[in-house]
Amino acid sequence: MFEFRIQRTDGLARAGTLTLPHGEVQTPAFMPVGTHAVVRGLSANDVRRTGAQIILGNTYHLHLRPGETVIQQMGGLHRFTTWDRPMLTDSGGFQVFSLQGLRSIGEHGVEFQSHIDGTTRTLTPERAMEIQWQLGADIAMAFDHVVPGQSSPAAACEGMERTLRWLDRCRRTHSDLAERGKEGTREEAAALVPSFPPSLLPSFHQTLWPIIQGGIHDELRLRSLEGTLERGPWTGIAIGGLSVGEPKPVMHHILESLEPSLPREIPRYLMGVGFPADLLEGIARGVDLFDCVAATRNGRHGSAWLPTGRVNVRGAALKGSTDPLDPTCDCETCTTYPRGYLRHLFVVEDMLGLRLISIHNIRFLVRLGEQARTHILNGTFDGWSREWLGRHSARGD
Amino acid sequence: MFEFRIQRTDGLARAGTLTLPHGEVQTPAFMPVGTHAVVRGLSANDVRRTGAQIILGNTYHLHLRPGETVIQQMGGLHRFTTWDRPMLTDSGGFQVFSLQGLRSIGEHGVEFQSHIDGTTRTLTPERAMEIQWQLGADIAMAFDHVVPGQSSPAAACEGMERTLRWLDRCRRTHSDLAERGKEGTREEAAALVPSFPPSLLPSFHQTLWPIIQGGIHDELRLRSLEGTLERGPWTGIAIGGLSVGEPKPVMHHILESLEPSLPREIPRYLMGVGFPADLLEGIARGVDLFDCVAATRNGRHGSAWLPTGRVNVRGAALKGSTDPLDPTCDCETCTTYPRGYLRHLFVVEDMLGLRLISIHNIRFLVRLGEQARTHILNGTFDGWSREWLGRHSARGD
Repeated sequence: MFEFRIQRTDGLARAGTLTLPHGEVQTPAFMPVGTHAVVRGLSANDVRRTGAQIILGNTYHLHLRPGETVIQQMGGLHRFTTWDRPMLTDSGGFQVFSLQGLRSIGEHGVEFQSHIDGTTRTLTPERAMEIQWQLGADIAMAFDHVVPGQSSPAAACEGMERTLRWLDRCRRTHSDLAERGKEGTREEAAALVPSFPPSLLPSFHQTLWPIIQGGIHDELRLRSLEGTLERGPWTGIAIGGLSVGEPKPVMHHILESLEPSLPREIPRYLMGVGFPADLLEGIARGVDLFDCVAATRNGRHGSAWLPTGRVNVRGAALKGSTDPLDPTCDCETCTTYPRGYLRHLFVVEDMLGLRLISIHNIRFLVRLGEQARTHILNGTFDGWSREWLGRHSARGD
Repeated sequence: MFEFRIQRTDGLARAGTLTLPHGEVQTPAFMPVGTHAVVRGLSANDVRRTGAQIILGNTYHLHLRPGETVIQQMGGLHRFTTWDRPMLTDSGGFQVFSLQGLRSIGEHGVEFQSHIDGTTRTLTPERAMEIQWQLGADIAMAFDHVVPGQSSPAAACEGMERTLRWLDRCRRTHSDLAERGKEGTREEAAALVPSFPPSLLPSFHQTLWPIIQGGIHDELRLRSLEGTLERGPWTGIAIGGLSVGEPKPVMHHILESLEPSLPREIPRYLMGVGFPADLLEGIARGVDLFDCVAATRNGRHGSAWLPTGRVNVRGAALKGSTDPLDPTCDCETCTTYPRGYLRHLFVVEDMLGLRLISIHNIRFLVRLGEQARTHILNGTFDGWSREWLGRHSARGD
């Protein structure tokens, strides 16, 4: 369990297979985000049809609504959402640190006000582990101290060092939970909801992944990585606190400076990234996993990714067109609907339009991962990705 | 084509089969409404999975957006929506007469202001036929003068008589269009969009159905029916202007007074009806076809139909429940999702919730038609429908 096999590398790019309790993930891979236990507007079947192999859940949002206890009593996040493939939950760190003015940070953890009902809540490394254990995803993320993208070295250092101290507490709590969970829990859950298909049982073999912090400062990033590896071994490792406002070349530089020191044998997850070009840039620098809400957020605003850049589905140019949105795409939207109809759905403000563009955008990123993998396996990644990036950015996107 | 065969009657209830260019419709049947060329929020596949055999399009809305010419140039309403089964379009009469204060009525037709851009437009019997011909549904409806539900005999009589005069004009125009359409049109459309699956071609053999008016006045209704039949023959007949505010017993009485004079051999369509109980009450009075937006409108507000009445999916009672919404239902929603998850989707305001309840509500009405048909074929309709109505209305709905 949690084994990661690398089939081939091509430059720094890696084609691998990650084995998780709910199935395998062929990497590189994009993971759609299911913030509220739903990939915004999409059914589990919609998401499955995009070829997505693993999705995310947000601990912060699920803690507030419906609450981890409700989800646990209903049999865990898999049964709750009917998503039967691998799942990863974040720790809530990114969300609570984004609540400017509504939270106070201490060594113990973060006290914050719910954005839903204003109640005061506390998230600590221990609570973040307990909540994620109750949710029951395959992969839990460590509770980290995220600092803004352009933080000073001092602020970035403080967040990075605290993240390491918190990692000790996360690890301890998660080990305790896993130890206790070994006995009987699966049977208890099965007894709770007898009609469970086995694929919807929660992951009782949950693994914990640490998160590298350190802002945009090479040296802090490397110290974060060293400190994290000292606390290992780990079955995967994440790079957090990027794509939060810093220029793209800065992110690429951080990835390049970390890469030689990252362990070869475990998957690397670049959190909160990204757009199509970001995926290819990340893969070229040795990243295996990505997540981002841009696919669904853009979809809801009628902005669709194409190999040649981006198109606004509301645009008059699409009126009356019987062509597919993207003739090279194999998604449900592109193989079924004329784009004149997609435009019409946005004009009359029917929510089917939002859904169909989100499906396309997710498939676009999932397929980009699949294509990258094929080219890595063929040893043609570098030429292909350069050519792809040239074509995609030609329209200034 | 347009043949209607009755397999069996049980009391006044009828089990029949209507043959249309895009396929057969087993009656009694509920027809979901696709106002803007989309059943609100649902894909054509979602609607197909509810078992719906035929859907509606609204001429008024499609005339305004995207316009009948756009739809015709894209190959007709079937190709536009990707709905490959039978389709019916209304004439726009009901909508323009609902535009209180924004329209002026004359013998020629109705001049109205678009609710979208304020432009002045005119809908006449001739235009209503032309638009529907361009849309290309299997069944076009006559352009009728609809009066409010509680209209005086004088007002109801005026609307009813005008509807008859307009019917002459509708018939003439529709015959001309059909005559011209016989030659080449199908080939032209196929040439326009060579990738057309044949099932998505428009209906070049479109039929026209008249609409009985006359408000809540028996005698006017019967005169409307006589005048309509004099202008026949017809392949189907609709009863309009009901379920617009009059008490239910009044609607039932009108149906009962019309029934003996309605032709046996063609299908009867009760427009804008209804709720589950209305379907059974209508079927018991010899009605074959129904349409109503309540299934999707209620769905969007989280109100789901159950055999025992109605449930508000937002209700706290559903929190944490792993039961299906309706254990007796075979729809995608009820066979897949725990109702605690459906409630959660409404709490976090994800549009997937709206869609899943709309799917259930449509399936509920479609299945009620299927069940009624089975009981008619078995000769057990009366007892079954009384028992069903007793259970459904026990909760005051």
